[in-house]
Amino acid sequence: MELEDFAKEVMPKGGWGYLAGGSGDEFTLRRNVASFNSKGILPRVLADVEFPDTSTSILGHDLKVPFIMAPIAAHGLAHETKEAGTAKGIAEFGGTIMSISAYSGAKFSEIEEGLQGNARWFQIYMSKDDEFNRNIIDEAKADGATAIILTADSTLSGNRERDINNKFVYPFGMPIVSRYLSGDGKNMSLNNIYAQSKQKISPRDVKFLSEYSGLPVFVKGIQTAEDATLAIGAGAAGIWVSNHGGRQLDGAPGSFETLAEISAAVAGRVPIVFDSGIRRGEHIFKALASGADIVALGRPVLFGLALGGWKGVKSVLEYFETDLKRVMQLAGTQTIADVKQAKLKDLTDWNR
Amino acid sequence: MELEDFAKEVMPKGGWGYLAGGSGDEFTLRRNVASFNSKGILPRVLADVEFPDTSTSILGHDLKVPFIMAPIAAHGLAHETKEAGTAKGIAEFGGTIMSISAYSGAKFSEIEEGLQGNARWFQIYMSKDDEFNRNIIDEAKADGATAIILTADSTLSGNRERDINNKFVYPFGMPIVSRYLSGDGKNMSLNNIYAQSKQKISPRDVKFLSEYSGLPVFVKGIQTAEDATLAIGAGAAGIWVSNHGGRQLDGAPGSFETLAEISAAVAGRVPIVFDSGIRRGEHIFKALASGADIVALGRPVLFGLALGGWKGVKSVLEYFETDLKRVMQLAGTQTIADVKQAKLKDLTDWNR
Amino acid sequence: MELEDFAKEVMPKGGWGYLAGGSGDEFTLRRNVASFNSKGILPRVLADVEFPDTSTSILGHDLKVPFIMAPIAAHGLAHETKEAGTAKGIAEFGGTIMSISAYSGAKFSEIEEGLQGNARWFQIYMSKDDEFNRNIIDEAKADGATAIILTADSTLSGNRERDINNKFVYPFGMPIVSRYLSGDGKNMSLNNIYAQSKQKISPRDVKFLSEYSGLPVFVKGIQTAEDATLAIGAGAAGIWVSNHGGRQLDGAPGSFETLAEISAAVAGRVPIVFDSGIRRGEHIFKALASGADIVALGRPVLFGLALGGWKGVKSVLEYFETDLKRVMQLAGTQTIADVKQAKLKDLTDWNR
Amino acid sequence: MELEDFAKEVMPKGGWGYLAGGSGDEFTLRRNVASFNSKGILPRVLADVEFPDTSTSILGHDLKVPFIMAPIAAHGLAHETKEAGTAKGIAEFGGTIMSISAYSGAKFSEIEEGLQGNARWFQIYMSKDDEFNRNIIDEAKADGATAIILTADSTLSGNRERDINNKFVYPFGMPIVSRYLSGDGKNMSLNNIYAQSKQKISPRDVKFLSEYSGLPVFVKGIQTAEDATLAIGAGAAGIWVSNHGGRQLDGAPGSFETLAEISAAVAGRVPIVFDSGIRRGEHIFKALASGADIVALGRPVLFGLALGGWKGVKSVLEYFETDLKRVMQLAGTQTIADVKQAKLKDLTDWNR
Repeated sequence: MELEDFAKEVMPKGGWGYLAGGSGDEFTLRRNVASFNSKGILPRVLADVEFPDTSTSILGHDLKVPFIMAPIAAHGLAHETKEAGTAKGIAEFGGTIMSISAYSGAKFSEIEEGLQGNARWFQIYMSKDDEFNRNIIDEAKADGATAIILTADSTLSGNRERDINNKFVYPFGMPIVSRYLSGDGKNMSLNNIYAQSKQKISPRDVKFLSEYSGLPVFVKGIQTAEDATLAIGAGAAGIWVSNHGGRQLDGAPGSFETLAEISAAVAGRVPIVFDSGIRRGEHIFKALASGADIVALGRPVLFGLALGGWKGVKSVLEYFETDLKRVMQLAGTQTIADVKQAKLKDLTDWNR
Repeated sequence: MELEDFAKEVMPKGGWGYLAGGSGDEFTLRRNVASFNSKGILPRVLADVEFPDTSTSILGHDLKVPFIMAPIAAHGLAHETKEAGTAKGIAEFGGTIMSISAYSGAKFSEIEEGLQGNARWFQIYMSKDDEFNRNIIDEAKADGATAIILTADSTLSGNRERDINNKFVYPFGMPIVSRYLSGDGKNMSLNNIYAQSKQKISPRDVKFLSEYSGLPVFVKGIQTAEDATLAIGAGAAGIWVSNHGGRQLDGAPGSFETLAEISAAVAGRVPIVFDSGIRRGEHIFKALASGADIVALGRPVLFGLALGGWKGVKSVLEYFETDLKRVMQLAGTQTIADVKQAKLKDLTDWNR
Repeated sequence: MELEDFAKEVMPKGGWGYLAGGSGDEFTLRRNVASFNSKGILPRVLADVEFPDTSTSILGHDLKVPFIMAPIAAHGLAHETKEAGTAKGIAEFGGTIMSISAYSGAKFSEIEEGLQGNARWFQIYMSKDDEFNRNIIDEAKADGATAIILTADSTLSGNRERDINNKFVYPFGMPIVSRYLSGDGKNMSLNNIYAQSKQKISPRDVKFLSEYSGLPVFVKGIQTAEDATLAIGAGAAGIWVSNHGGRQLDGAPGSFETLAEISAAVAGRVPIVFDSGIRRGEHIFKALASGADIVALGRPVLFGLALGGWKGVKSVLEYFETDLKRVMQLAGTQTIADVKQAKLKDLTDWNR
Repeated sequence: MELEDFAKEVMPKGGWGYLAGGSGDEFTLRRNVASFNSKGILPRVLADVEFPDTSTSILGHDLKVPFIMAPIAAHGLAHETKEAGTAKGIAEFGGTIMSISAYSGAKFSEIEEGLQGNARWFQIYMSKDDEFNRNIIDEAKADGATAIILTADSTLSGNRERDINNKFVYPFGMPIVSRYLSGDGKNMSLNNIYAQSKQKISPRDVKFLSEYSGLPVFVKGIQTAEDATLAIGAGAAGIWVSNHGGRQLDGAPGSFETLAEISAAVAGRVPIVFDSGIRRGEHIFKALASGADIVALGRPVLFGLALGGWKGVKSVLEYFETDLKRVMQLAGTQTIADVKQAKLKDLTDWNR
């Protein structure tokens, strides 16, 4: 939790506001973290646990931890090594997956310098023109992506008042999507970039991406059981529960509050990735106990990148691994399967 | 939300306290805004939405947005152009309705200079003497009002401690109601003016206004299903859900908290206007999804007037239009009809 | 609400801490006021109300307002005129009742100088020795008391940490109970005085007081339906719902939270007086709408006494009368009977 | 409550952070105290109570109060007299039990200098090697322990960020467990010491301790009905409800929130000790009324030790005795059996 404060000091105001901030009143941003307190972990004792095992797998990938890197745009705001720095931290940590954003400030080839063959998924912001989408998918597949993440929750920029006040524009281009932007992204506002991407996302896009790529497609941004069902019906190979880190629609529930109901609707048909608000090992535990198969980490990793380059990234991932193991031990759970069976207690807001 | 702080700096203390403040402990004032957080918007993705359409209609008026100007007294406290400034901002924005308060500091003819033929409704504070009421209605009809708004929630001034502490009196007269005031309103306190207006409002007044004016009558200040039913029975052509912006009875629920139950009782028989607490596009969305047909905006427009005259008014209206479109896009709703069908999620107060 | 801050400035620290403070963490003290926000007044409009009538009656007394003065010890801490000052303010206001505490710092004859024949009830702190109790009752009857209030909630001093930190002792004697104190109360701590009073209060005491005095007896400090039933069974002529202003048992509910259930159990068999936490006309309204017949005002009156002597007392009573009338008008209630029939809306804590 | 602030001033930062702090966000630490406010004591009046009797008994020990000393490591952080100082305070107070932690910084013989034959229970942190465990139990029995407390909730150190920031290490050794540590504990971190203790606690350990010691065994750290049942099935003679003072698993409920359900499951088969969050007599009352037979006091006693050595310890115990008697009197309960029958009222978080 302290990383955010430290990162604020080393990052330019505009970049930090963009990365750390949310939309509107930032109600949903705060609630993403706070709503984890609406359920309490019930520690089980006498559980015969030692050396908890955090390994799991998803869509054929064996992971040493149940968390991966979330797709985030413009890592260069945090550190000069951009996405390549993040990628190197992930590679050094090992046993997890990097999600590469179509709004990356680095090219695939630059990221690969850091990622060194480690697993990657590709998050697409679609163009209005499917020809461009085919080109982008081709490029991502050539880079080795093993899944496509369709960004369905961000068809337009949220009401980012920090960015408005900071007159924030991207200080560098976005090579992957520059083919469909007027300009390459440099000195463009988020509003402008989003507006040139595709707004009209529908089940047809899930089908298109799935069929064209031949890869499993996650629909990212699911917050309702209805949309989870719709996405699976359209061919989604995975559900990605997220509210985009509270950066899009404010006045929405915390992402964690929507998870259990979605999980019940998915009923194990496809895997569930969860993001938005994870800051502690306890949060990972609670998300898995509420139906997520793995979680994705965003801001904390970028704060680590800002503070220590790839070493900072690795350090943040190690913190989560250590913290999760500790939580698993103290909660009396030996394996990720145990965590997924753990019972949480509903709490009301009684902190005074 | 920031406008309030900026407006505070440019307005005289007495006028600002009058405009921004509420009654008693200002519990209801705060709750008007805060209670919007008791329901969360569930963003729908894969919804095939682009260029959301905010147009709607009410009582024969085609509107480009589902919001209008709420009736507010004494715009001259905010800006020297008084109600005419507000009217001009509304006219320049276009496609909406101005509500003209009987406690206006400008005459109809002055307001018309700004309003330039755009649609208007007239909000009456009744005199104890129906002869005066007939005169006022005649004048409003001559001015072109297409509906009468009966102020039923303010038969007396609330306990406005800010005004007491500021020894606030109106710095100018109220030409429309001056015919029934002892004095023209200038240098009079709110208490004094209210006391000379009619306290004894009953269903008979709805009938009287309706029959004499031949215009549709809204009963403004409805906070219970019982009163909505009563008003419709008395001939009301519309229900206006409002607690007068938290300025009258403190210790009352937030206005938004009363809306869904009232809407269920109204059951589509007449249109519902909602006000009190709208500060964001998300709030408009939530009010429509809870049964309002349109909403009315009050303080934010006046803060805009204070800060930029008619251009400030226009700018505030544009902000709400833009913000609502963004929310509609992110929530996966193409039309106002879609918004009205959207499902909200009950939230508890878990922000820590 | 502001009176408290002003009074703090004019009163000695020890006396102010004694008067304004509560016990333990002051959880119950705060909750007494805050729990009024757990129910919202639903304003009724179109209710045909003008000049609301606050008159009511209790046990044969016609009152112009539904509130009386609560019994409070040691008014001399607030003002040099002691209980006589309070009494004069009450007499000048007229149409209400003064409760005289057995822990008064003034004699009956001194109080009568201010009270001038106005109605009075007598609150007894019982001695361990019934002979003394008979003497005290004889004296109170001779003074004209028309009811006895048995203090059942304060058989010992609460954990008053402010008093401990201030090393608070009474700066003057307590003439009414001095007959059973070792010493006359002067320079004694509250702990000491309470300890010399009777702890072992039981239904027998209700019977004894009732039979010996021939007067109606209120049992003060009722917080449960069970005790209300017990008291009525023992001959109580009235139930006084109170938690002694949060000065006794901390960690208890707000007094208002217990009222509705008690009222249901009493079922109109005897009248109900309510105190603890009343600071606004809205609070009086909510208490009456929850089953109280009248309410008793404590601290606000003493703050008035501290700030303006008897004129301050009168001014505070006038404030409550004005505020209640305003609330009745805005809530659409013409009479106290209407208020008692008003429906409140359950609210949850949603102020953010 | 004020003791904590005073103690902070006299203790070294590292020691104070270790003693007062919790894990993670300290959510559970705060909630341990705050959750007592989720239930309100309903004061009963007319209850015929005088000189409340706090005596009770547990497992054959007659106690003058329903509280004992909780096991806490390293009292030497608070005061140079270490556990012997605490023991002397307990002995001088009399009529209660000291729990001696296996992580004590003093030897049994040193503690006995203060404890002087008073009752004691021994809290074991097990070694991975049962031979050492047998030695430790032999030594505790020789010292006169009449019960064994198995620490089941702390198989690893919680995420103690204060300790990390303070680079906290124990400034002295731990003689009782030094036989199984590499080193004697001095200059070791908590992480290090915990890691050398046994992680893999199971029902087998309850059985082993019970059979080898021949003493009643409490399982400490129970937070679920399931584990209470499991422990009793494994031979536990008592259930110790605790979350280790919020020092282990953060994001867990307040300990008090778990008590009533556990008590229902235990159904009187074995006694229940409760700890975590007790700071007031009201808290003791609420815990007993929710199913605890006795409670254990931790931090407040250590703060007393820090501030006044053994006299501070005695003073804190006397405070709790006085406070509990006052609460019992004001709540209308004569005996501990009455307290255990008292009804609490569910409260929601309404303090504003």
